Amino acid sequence: MFRNALFISLVGLSISASCLATDAGHQYVPAPAPPGNAPAPPFSEGVTAGGAFYVAGHIGLDPATQKAAANVDTEAHLVLDAVKHTLSDAGLTMDDLVSVTVYCTDLGLYDSFNAVYRTYFHAPYPARAFIGVNQLVRGAHFEVAGVAVKRAAGR
Amino acid sequence: MFRNALFISLVGLSISASCLATDAGHQYVPAPAPPGNAPAPPFSEGVTAGGAFYVAGHIGLDPATQKAAANVDTEAHLVLDAVKHTLSDAGLTMDDLVSVTVYCTDLGLYDSFNAVYRTYFHAPYPARAFIGVNQLVRGAHFEVAGVAVKRAAGR
Amino acid sequence: MFRNALFISLVGLSISASCLATDAGHQYVPAPAPPGNAPAPPFSEGVTAGGAFYVAGHIGLDPATQKAAANVDTEAHLVLDAVKHTLSDAGLTMDDLVSVTVYCTDLGLYDSFNAVYRTYFHAPYPARAFIGVNQLVRGAHFEVAGVAVKRAAGR
Repeated sequence: MFRNALFISLVGLSISASCLATDAGHQYVPAPAPPGNAPAPPFSEGVTAGGAFYVAGHIGLDPATQKAAANVDTEAHLVLDAVKHTLSDAGLTMDDLVSVTVYCTDLGLYDSFNAVYRTYFHAPYPARAFIGVNQLVRGAHFEVAGVAVKRAAGR
Repeated sequence: MFRNALFISLVGLSISASCLATDAGHQYVPAPAPPGNAPAPPFSEGVTAGGAFYVAGHIGLDPATQKAAANVDTEAHLVLDAVKHTLSDAGLTMDDLVSVTVYCTDLGLYDSFNAVYRTYFHAPYPARAFIGVNQLVRGAHFEVAGVAVKRAAGR
Repeated sequence: MFRNALFISLVGLSISASCLATDAGHQYVPAPAPPGNAPAPPFSEGVTAGGAFYVAGHIGLDPATQKAAANVDTEAHLVLDAVKHTLSDAGLTMDDLVSVTVYCTDLGLYDSFNAVYRTYFHAPYPARAFIGVNQLVRGAHFEVAGVAVKRAAGR
């Protein structure tokens, strides 16, 4: 039973936030520790609260260099893999995403990103905003953030 | 936490009898089918989940050209009409919006956009962020996304 | 029972939707009245709805000039103070934030902003996106928006 305490607490959370003043507590997917003795980054990869899971902005880093991948299609896969991994840490899948924001430094990549993006979802898709921004950390072309709410079984 | 796991799970179970029928899963407002045989876009216009309605980033397209309207005030109306239409499809109104993000390619349009924006709401207004971005899809000057939660009747 | 964990968790989530009808209404933290007889801005600083508090995009204005502070570290403090103040008006603290978006006009300020940012939180941190944008209102270098859900007492 205690093996499932994480899940049970999520049930408690979704009830409390909407109906009760009390709250069983938020749950955090921590950011990975940086190499060396650099301080931990000041953000979590995702937080469960009030029945929703808030997904931080993720980027698609080349594991070797910890910078954006050289190839933009590879980067698109890496960023979506990273989001998928964080969702998985919270017991969720891409199909649980209800809202996604894609920040992109070059809207010329819109179609090629979409081609990759489609392979990570089953319709119906989350709501989405696709925003052409000036610059992203570590030279990324894409940053993907979102909100997930667990779907009913069988969908 | 573990001490209370049994209690919490019982709360979850007892609720199921009374509330289960009210939410069979998420609800999606699909994006309109594109002209010709282009694939459907990989996003919904909005998704209801966990008591909130997540509104995708909307732009103000000229119905004839499917590009941003030539006049920015017309475009401001078109983008807010589009948001209003999506909310309506979910049984909601602009007054149910609680959070809005306006992405704008030219902050010189801030005041004129606001003049149009005010005509779509009754105070009190949603929370809002107004962000000057680099570029938006289809040459849009504005993209508007948000979150709505149905207000109590009588407001 | 545990085989049905997914189902049970959705039962928890369904509470949000069904209890909204009993919601006494949303609660708004109004934007401060502007000087002179300028119209009130068309946004609230924050809105409570459906168990979450939606925090508008805040900027760090110099109280004397109502423009962005001359020093970027001062501005970082001012913007986070402004967010903290709005949260406080809703009975919340920075530790209740679950999701934060930082819009920044110069990613060269990433490290210095983070140094200030860390002083406003206790780990674990909210999820966060950090986005390099083109321009912000009133010459701001930073705009900070987010979502808060009240944490359990004792955290």
